[in-house]
Amino acid sequence: MIERVPGLIPTRSRAVIRDGIVTTVATSASKEPSLYAQACDALATIDRNLRQAGTNKSRILTAMVYITDMSRKPELNRAWDEWVDRVNPPLRACLGVALEGDDLVEIVVTAEV
Amino acid sequence: MIERVPGLIPTRSRAVIRDGIVTTVATSASKEPSLYAQACDALATIDRNLRQAGTNKSRILTAMVYITDMSRKPELNRAWDEWVDRVNPPLRACLGVALEGDDLVEIVVTAEV
Amino acid sequence: MIERVPGLIPTRSRAVIRDGIVTTVATSASKEPSLYAQACDALATIDRNLRQAGTNKSRILTAMVYITDMSRKPELNRAWDEWVDRVNPPLRACLGVALEGDDLVEIVVTAEV
Repeated sequence: MIERVPGLIPTRSRAVIRDGIVTTVATSASKEPSLYAQACDALATIDRNLRQAGTNKSRILTAMVYITDMSRKPELNRAWDEWVDRVNPPLRACLGVALEGDDLVEIVVTAEV
Repeated sequence: MIERVPGLIPTRSRAVIRDGIVTTVATSASKEPSLYAQACDALATIDRNLRQAGTNKSRILTAMVYITDMSRKPELNRAWDEWVDRVNPPLRACLGVALEGDDLVEIVVTAEV
Repeated sequence: MIERVPGLIPTRSRAVIRDGIVTTVATSASKEPSLYAQACDALATIDRNLRQAGTNKSRILTAMVYITDMSRKPELNRAWDEWVDRVNPPLRACLGVALEGDDLVEIVVTAEV
């Protein structure tokens, strides 16, 4: 059984849940030029998406973090380190890719629900 | 128990199935210069791979879509929107990366079997 | 129940295990300029991480391979083909991205434990 959480765009889900695992994705709603600010915003959206799925960041398994400028990774790390549950750190990979428009960061997480 | 579907290259599987989830990958067999055409072709291959695994696009959980030119993302979106099961939209992320040769798109999906 | 294997950095896990699946990540400890050498090193780390989780490369489901220079993918393929369990080939995708510092390759795998 698959549960789908609708997103803003009808052809995609904001989250999918199956067999006790939710996968969800977020970018920053605000398109500020600061990667740190966008990362904080995207992580706050991840928090909301996880809450909506009945879980929270202490139960994240994996986080794939995509940023557009690897030279600014320290900003991402700062936002991450302030946000993460240090007792339950996820597996994380951070990769430099191209994103759409003014997006500087996109995050995909899996978590136990 | 892991089930593996052989691909063209002996050191990789086209699909793997475990515990009711298939993961599969596709590029476009035709290397046309149109991202739209390549995306339609890759999505048709995803359909075939899912059928071979005993499932279909209505049961996709996640789709990671990799394209080589983010400025052409509207072409990808057009192919996606024509193809997707709107009653059961997957979680999707679309990322700009480098691919091999003339590939313009590569898609990795997970689906319930 | 989630099991986490601590990594070098306290805000991230080297591996996470849940419901019979481990996800783990590796880069090369040595930052040699050869992609082949870095890929061999990263794959050896994957071997160690899998062993630590009680499994091995014959039970890998998926491998996402990120390299910084797609024109050197043949070097990655050589390391992969020498390393892989040909009886049990994983699903693999290889994507060109930016990585940090002198890293030329990063690998994320999922395996049955």
